[in-house]
Amino acid sequence: MNFMEKLDRAVRRNGSLVCVGLDPAMNKLPECLRRRPDAIYEFNRRLVDATKDLVCAYKPQAAYYAGQDCDEALKSTVKYIKANAPEIPVILDVKRGDIGSTAEWYAKEAFERYGADAVTVNPYMGYDAVKPFLEYTDKGVIILCRTSNPHSGDLQNLVADGKPLYVHVAELVRDKWNGGGNAALVVGATYPEELRELRRLCPELPFLVPGVGAQGGDVEKVVKFGCRADGTGIIVNSSRGIIYASGGEDFAEAAAAAAGKLRDEINACR
Amino acid sequence: MNFMEKLDRAVRRNGSLVCVGLDPAMNKLPECLRRRPDAIYEFNRRLVDATKDLVCAYKPQAAYYAGQDCDEALKSTVKYIKANAPEIPVILDVKRGDIGSTAEWYAKEAFERYGADAVTVNPYMGYDAVKPFLEYTDKGVIILCRTSNPHSGDLQNLVADGKPLYVHVAELVRDKWNGGGNAALVVGATYPEELRELRRLCPELPFLVPGVGAQGGDVEKVVKFGCRADGTGIIVNSSRGIIYASGGEDFAEAAAAAAGKLRDEINACR
Repeated sequence: MNFMEKLDRAVRRNGSLVCVGLDPAMNKLPECLRRRPDAIYEFNRRLVDATKDLVCAYKPQAAYYAGQDCDEALKSTVKYIKANAPEIPVILDVKRGDIGSTAEWYAKEAFERYGADAVTVNPYMGYDAVKPFLEYTDKGVIILCRTSNPHSGDLQNLVADGKPLYVHVAELVRDKWNGGGNAALVVGATYPEELRELRRLCPELPFLVPGVGAQGGDVEKVVKFGCRADGTGIIVNSSRGIIYASGGEDFAEAAAAAAGKLRDEINACR
Repeated sequence: MNFMEKLDRAVRRNGSLVCVGLDPAMNKLPECLRRRPDAIYEFNRRLVDATKDLVCAYKPQAAYYAGQDCDEALKSTVKYIKANAPEIPVILDVKRGDIGSTAEWYAKEAFERYGADAVTVNPYMGYDAVKPFLEYTDKGVIILCRTSNPHSGDLQNLVADGKPLYVHVAELVRDKWNGGGNAALVVGATYPEELRELRRLCPELPFLVPGVGAQGGDVEKVVKFGCRADGTGIIVNSSRGIIYASGGEDFAEAAAAAAGKLRDEINACR
């Protein structure tokens, strides 16, 4: 089953468009876990157990594992999800982008070393930087378009030929890069008007939408502007708002409650 | 000593603008090394021993280590360079770019986990994606501008306000992002006219210039168009053309010969 089918089934199974960002920082973990040698893996494992019936995807952010020198915790986490929540796809958030011969190694990293179902990539270097990922046609390739961060407009809003850069990216993906049907876009929740414009331009492409929760995106606008006509087509990621819902021993239950609440808020607007 | 000073000293010490890309793929290593458990590290170690008096920098490409699940070989290689060629700076080629809170972890990865002197980053997400790297003011931050790959123009050549995107990046770096004096640009050898234009626009910024050798960039044009008025200011990277100069037991001597030849070719044009 390819990523798009797996995602679609998870959305229907759990009635959810919520993605949980597994972005564990050691200094923010519940006290009860910090002394364990496997603290990060254990944190993720319990989050997965508590939320697997409430979400449509998990999205580990590779930087947390890379920056804390705990790649093994990332590998074990993906393995755990595959074994214990096999219906939920894993999006590895890496935002890689490099010349073709190098991008092949990054594709291997994401899909073979870590076993991710989908990956985020950066379009700045053009088609040959994205192609080695797209060639894994059973995997999803989610291309940065309009990102959620404050300065995302520095380049993305520059207007060329009457269209902002992020629209050029969306059109390249829609018209040229998606021959395998496995591409999607990253569109931040913090820019709802752009989300609306991009959905109009790309009626079918799935959007990964980060930026609700800690970054302040508005759930109602995200759903109203981002969903496809069939009420799906967005993967709404929340990381900090879910995984740190409680800093105590009840962190997993609190995460489940926060994920369920976000799912319900989204579904009320669909 | 910060990266820019270290680079400048290495250039003068070795009379060289050559950077060796340490991009080892197991299936391309000399037969005599492949069966060793530490093959990749040993390959790099012998390359460093053979070339350390001929180059101004080393540039390991992180994807090769990530894709082959050998992060330890990367760590040991950087450590080996620091111990045995301490005058030569290490540029970790990672091309990361993410929201600020995430980019902090990638900066930790490059500068603290691996101990790199400089890093490459992707500007697509704007200032806050680059800032956590720039804040390490003793480290170099080399921002993708005009990359060497065939499809780099897909986005980079789009013209906004009368200027291609890569010129916007160069001007942002020159005028706004370089408060710490530790920024540089990636400008591919395969686009010499753009290199000339960028040197005219940015008379002082150092340029990392990949794309000579396997990618086909012209050395004479790179030097003529890329150098600052003082005959420095470019870091000319070659990976495959040096590290695979011979596939036999003499690979290190052959790499030294290739690095020396490239150094001399460059110097003849300075």
